[in-house]
Amino acid sequence: VTVLRRAVMADLPEPDLAAAAAVRARADTVLRPPGALRNLDDVAVHLAAWQATARPGVRRPAVLVFAGDHGVAAAGVSNYPASITASMLAAVRAGRATVNAMATAVGATVTAFDVGVGVPTGDIRVAPALAPERFDAITEVAFEAVDGAAGAGADVLVLGELGIGNTTAAAALAAALIDAPLTELVGRGTGLDDAGMERKRAAVAAAAGRCAGIGDPLEVLRQVGGSELAAIAAACVRARHHRIPVVLDGYICTAAVLALHAAAPGVLAHCLAGHASAEPGHRHTLAHLGLRPMLTLDLRLGEGTGALAALPLLELACRAVTDVATFAEWFGDDA
Amino acid sequence: VTVLRRAVMADLPEPDLAAAAAVRARADTVLRPPGALRNLDDVAVHLAAWQATARPGVRRPAVLVFAGDHGVAAAGVSNYPASITASMLAAVRAGRATVNAMATAVGATVTAFDVGVGVPTGDIRVAPALAPERFDAITEVAFEAVDGAAGAGADVLVLGELGIGNTTAAAALAAALIDAPLTELVGRGTGLDDAGMERKRAAVAAAAGRCAGIGDPLEVLRQVGGSELAAIAAACVRARHHRIPVVLDGYICTAAVLALHAAAPGVLAHCLAGHASAEPGHRHTLAHLGLRPMLTLDLRLGEGTGALAALPLLELACRAVTDVATFAEWFGDDA
Repeated sequence: VTVLRRAVMADLPEPDLAAAAAVRARADTVLRPPGALRNLDDVAVHLAAWQATARPGVRRPAVLVFAGDHGVAAAGVSNYPASITASMLAAVRAGRATVNAMATAVGATVTAFDVGVGVPTGDIRVAPALAPERFDAITEVAFEAVDGAAGAGADVLVLGELGIGNTTAAAALAAALIDAPLTELVGRGTGLDDAGMERKRAAVAAAAGRCAGIGDPLEVLRQVGGSELAAIAAACVRARHHRIPVVLDGYICTAAVLALHAAAPGVLAHCLAGHASAEPGHRHTLAHLGLRPMLTLDLRLGEGTGALAALPLLELACRAVTDVATFAEWFGDDA
Repeated sequence: VTVLRRAVMADLPEPDLAAAAAVRARADTVLRPPGALRNLDDVAVHLAAWQATARPGVRRPAVLVFAGDHGVAAAGVSNYPASITASMLAAVRAGRATVNAMATAVGATVTAFDVGVGVPTGDIRVAPALAPERFDAITEVAFEAVDGAAGAGADVLVLGELGIGNTTAAAALAAALIDAPLTELVGRGTGLDDAGMERKRAAVAAAAGRCAGIGDPLEVLRQVGGSELAAIAAACVRARHHRIPVVLDGYICTAAVLALHAAAPGVLAHCLAGHASAEPGHRHTLAHLGLRPMLTLDLRLGEGTGALAALPLLELACRAVTDVATFAEWFGDDA
């Protein structure tokens, strides 16, 4: 996990406090009662801070979708066969999946990255998900993905995932890294029945149990995270290096970045939470990260769709500050 | 209240169940686990039913903002002087208010209607808000507003309001028409202090008390509703006649339509709830109407902004059904 660790422990760019203060000051003086749109104002201030401008906005949003297969899928923890991951990756690349339809509607690009489709991770019940070299290679792929988006001018990033079995990996990460009852960290994923839930809980308990003695959260990510989760973590910290704000998606995405937060509190300062999913563990990861979701629609798809659904609110939040007259502008200086 | 009653009691257009069924069937077979975006699917189905098409969407959204003044504002129930209503109406007409910035961002038109600015309603603590003739005249204005929007091809309506003192009127309506503790129906509005809250609670109790013997909910609306609330109720039922779906805004908007619901259960079947506001009474009115808000951002501005914030989700919900491949389309007929 050397490459990721170096990125997490590096000197990280800080937010532009002057831009943030300018947007806050304007938000507090536009033509409405102060705080009437507080939660939206906060989003505008956040974007100003990380985009380093008093005219923040969502002009070139980019979705990066990482896909990988999971050895633990063989344990019967999903309703779908592992082969669905490859099919869905092909559908995303063909522009036919839900993430594509939603991205088009909000003006976002979608780029998909294969970080392990057909090359399942180790069965996390009994073995590490990823060998150290593979973990590092995935980290590099994710860095390049973000560098590419940054080079294309992306001003907001959404990190999506595809991977049959990956709510099991997410639950294992959450169980290993945060203090919450295991039963509340394991959800039905794509729609698991009760017997499947039993298998999934047992798998998560075994995987998390293997992490008991591991003090290094990035090593926990390698042990139980899975390839697309490792990629999301790497992409997230790389976005911080580029000062690009990230809208986190559902349970898998937030579980993936738990390891960054544990390794270096504050490293996720550029992140917002898009939504609260129907997966019960998502509330726990969001609360642990101190993030308040914008939507509570009980979505449970992944692919980045929950973050995409929140994206229009980011733009609205910005316009509701920058494009509204202040009291002084409207009433004159004697306001 | 003759004109409004005739509209409420008329034969009302019903939803297009075939269009709704077609969208539901597609939603259940596109490339994702069934129900993974249930709440968004439901929105797409709703729009299909009322737009009467299997290709629903938000192509020409229109915001109608109604503005009026309230006699009860003289009782010290707001932080702002009544003159602010006229100033804000002018700002909306000049395109400088929050509703304009948000509408522009989502591609909606904004039209403002003066239904009583500078002509305050009666002090609802002691007298009817509106004389019968004035109530009918406002109803006609609201009908014409909706007819105009329908003529221009509006496919979704947002009903906004401006009126210093109108959370007091909303609370009085809610207190008279639904079963909830008065203290939970009275909120801080634009940011009232504790002494102001005492005055507001007393005003609401007095106004609601005057309605105790009135069995006709439309008469309750005339007694305590205020001009822009009467206009919203009238506009809402007129939208039903045109089969245009309505996204309800905050506390004032939902309180205004309570009278319709009480007079004719089912009359609001074309309505969706945009958000849950910071006004505590809004949860009560939404629950009473059986509506689930899409956003819980604690907005408390009005003007239609809470509904506007939800508008992009309507379009996303539709695209996530119509623009995603089905399993059969993607895998072939053997899927």
